[in-house]
Amino acid sequence: MDAEIVSVGTELLLGQIVDTHAATMARILAECGISCRHRATVGDNLDRVVETLKVALSRADVVVTIGGLGPTADDLTRDAIALAFDDTLEKVPEVEEKLKQFFAQRGITWVESNGRQAMKPTCADLIDNPNGTAPGLVARKNGKTVFALPGPRGEFDPMAYNQVKPMLENLGGGVVIHSRVLRVIGVGESMAEEKIKHLMVSENPTIAPYAQPMEVHLRITAKAPTVFAAEHLIDPVEESIREILGDAVYGTNLTTLEMAVKDLLSERGETISTAESMTGGGLSARLSSVPGSSDVFKGGVVTYTIEAKNLLLEGADDPQLNDPVSPEVAKFMAESIRRQLGTTYAISITGNAGPTSDVGQKPVGLVYIGIATEQGTHVEECRFRGIREDICKRAEQTALRLIREAILN
Amino acid sequence: MDAEIVSVGTELLLGQIVDTHAATMARILAECGISCRHRATVGDNLDRVVETLKVALSRADVVVTIGGLGPTADDLTRDAIALAFDDTLEKVPEVEEKLKQFFAQRGITWVESNGRQAMKPTCADLIDNPNGTAPGLVARKNGKTVFALPGPRGEFDPMAYNQVKPMLENLGGGVVIHSRVLRVIGVGESMAEEKIKHLMVSENPTIAPYAQPMEVHLRITAKAPTVFAAEHLIDPVEESIREILGDAVYGTNLTTLEMAVKDLLSERGETISTAESMTGGGLSARLSSVPGSSDVFKGGVVTYTIEAKNLLLEGADDPQLNDPVSPEVAKFMAESIRRQLGTTYAISITGNAGPTSDVGQKPVGLVYIGIATEQGTHVEECRFRGIREDICKRAEQTALRLIREAILN
Repeated sequence: MDAEIVSVGTELLLGQIVDTHAATMARILAECGISCRHRATVGDNLDRVVETLKVALSRADVVVTIGGLGPTADDLTRDAIALAFDDTLEKVPEVEEKLKQFFAQRGITWVESNGRQAMKPTCADLIDNPNGTAPGLVARKNGKTVFALPGPRGEFDPMAYNQVKPMLENLGGGVVIHSRVLRVIGVGESMAEEKIKHLMVSENPTIAPYAQPMEVHLRITAKAPTVFAAEHLIDPVEESIREILGDAVYGTNLTTLEMAVKDLLSERGETISTAESMTGGGLSARLSSVPGSSDVFKGGVVTYTIEAKNLLLEGADDPQLNDPVSPEVAKFMAESIRRQLGTTYAISITGNAGPTSDVGQKPVGLVYIGIATEQGTHVEECRFRGIREDICKRAEQTALRLIREAILN
Repeated sequence: MDAEIVSVGTELLLGQIVDTHAATMARILAECGISCRHRATVGDNLDRVVETLKVALSRADVVVTIGGLGPTADDLTRDAIALAFDDTLEKVPEVEEKLKQFFAQRGITWVESNGRQAMKPTCADLIDNPNGTAPGLVARKNGKTVFALPGPRGEFDPMAYNQVKPMLENLGGGVVIHSRVLRVIGVGESMAEEKIKHLMVSENPTIAPYAQPMEVHLRITAKAPTVFAAEHLIDPVEESIREILGDAVYGTNLTTLEMAVKDLLSERGETISTAESMTGGGLSARLSSVPGSSDVFKGGVVTYTIEAKNLLLEGADDPQLNDPVSPEVAKFMAESIRRQLGTTYAISITGNAGPTSDVGQKPVGLVYIGIATEQGTHVEECRFRGIREDICKRAEQTALRLIREAILN
């Protein structure tokens, strides 16, 4: 069973809106075990919508259209479905009556074009739309099925999940596609692939690596009759990967690195604090974004200027500490905040994120990260590339990786 | 001149990521006066990518591909372009040498698959990628042009805007569609539309309002022979809107609220500091994300626990200050950090972002924001809805709005 998604709307082709509905529908299809091999986006032009639908119907059993069901002249999806199926449109009087009542209740003048929303291809059934005026459609002919959903978010999401998904599950016929993501840090994409490539020959589940900023996601995807059975296929693959990559696997699915760090600290009853200059609070914001983080994250300082460093951190008047981008300052910041707040660990970040290299003539991208523990303080020198935002994100991510390693060791 | 966009990646067809790059590229094409009539998305399958490219090349003069340029076996875009153009791939030794150096510098082991990124169709030129390992491509044959851009965001955006857009502008020639966004704060979408609706009848430029989190964007779009001429059409519309909405217009295009605040402070030679509990450094991270912000943003504290508040802020042992989510604490935090760092202004945020209302029995979403100035301290009580992340973002946005108002008054 193959499906294609056709998004209709000139605003999509102009980039005025991002097509999140297509991603939602793609997820629904995958969950229903229906493969989606192509997705198309086309503007509000009848010929092109018809042509796109015909191509989709020639390749797929199921086509899902999104948008173009409204009352205005550029809402052409129902006309296009009729033409693509060599069918005609008919008016459904009860729908027109309901629409007229709807407008009357809201004191809106009825204009004839609103009647377009009561039209449907003769081969189609209507899908009730409790959240808007345009009903959805499910049109069936020659063994092919077209679902047509309205574009407004408040109408699309409920119709997709509550009405169309159950119909797709029936069509899918007993196969689901289910994924689990293993999140890997400290190993590059190529290296991760190299290490697990003997596992990647598997066809079910499949394993696909995705490079993410400073980490790699390994997506394990299984086809099975049920989600439970798919999980059962995925489990041993996860186990094999974990055996090879060890602690580099820090979490699954939506677990972020800050969540992994928070969980490690919670398990051990340990605490953390931060002293940031370059990242300006970005690291502490990530740590505190985890629900329940106040048990482990005590707080920190943002010493964005040398002045602030001297005022907020005790003992900063050592002349050795005049160069803000230096291993000495990273060490001092981490040790100082750890002592002041009495935490098990402390992280510091100091560096030059650009755009110019005017901070003590240090090059853009040079960053020192300090990790203070009971055993002493480790300072890591890093050189990051990219724009200011990237450098800060990479520094935060690296700081979280280093603190995770410090906790694990 | 017609273009098509082809996004490559199974993760897109599975709905695992939303295709924001396609929208970015669509906007760029529109700005260059190049019509985009179709957009396609296809998975990491060589036959299907080739077929999709051939269809696109049969209809359009320019095809832009996004993704599939990485080092792994499922990165197939460069192979597909060669096949679609009936061309072969060749290795560019200088690129391979650069890649090897890149890996060596970072102490990463070179694996042979990385060499794939040094391959190109013989009809293609490379587009330098200063932010990643895979170069982009511009392949030309039989009067058709294919641009290939990498998928990672930190690589796609700069290459799209800095390298591909100028080439597209040359191809476009004729009419440009150009927009300017006015960013409005403190006025709701309906109210903004109500106030400017007499301007919204204009057909060139058009005005469209978009609701954004805690602000409204008014997009003014003009069609003209050149960007310069379009700007000339937009200028008087901007002026009229500013006359009506006044200080509520805080910036244009990509100006963020933190940039507007930074600029106001820079102009006046004034400074700011922060004391955050609930937002955990999110506000200071926004302030410090603005290039040059170290001239105005001195630093701050993240008093994520009561303990940290007592240790980092002077005079916190007043028993009145035991309830962390209270106007008294917001006032104290702002005044204390302002005094400690000697800044013109200080902002504090304390509140309960959830998920549970266990912080002193205060309801989720209750937030106090303190604005300390020479004239005294104002505390605003806010009640925000949404999940933890939404509540923090709204608090930060409101804090920036309040400090902007304080600076302007």
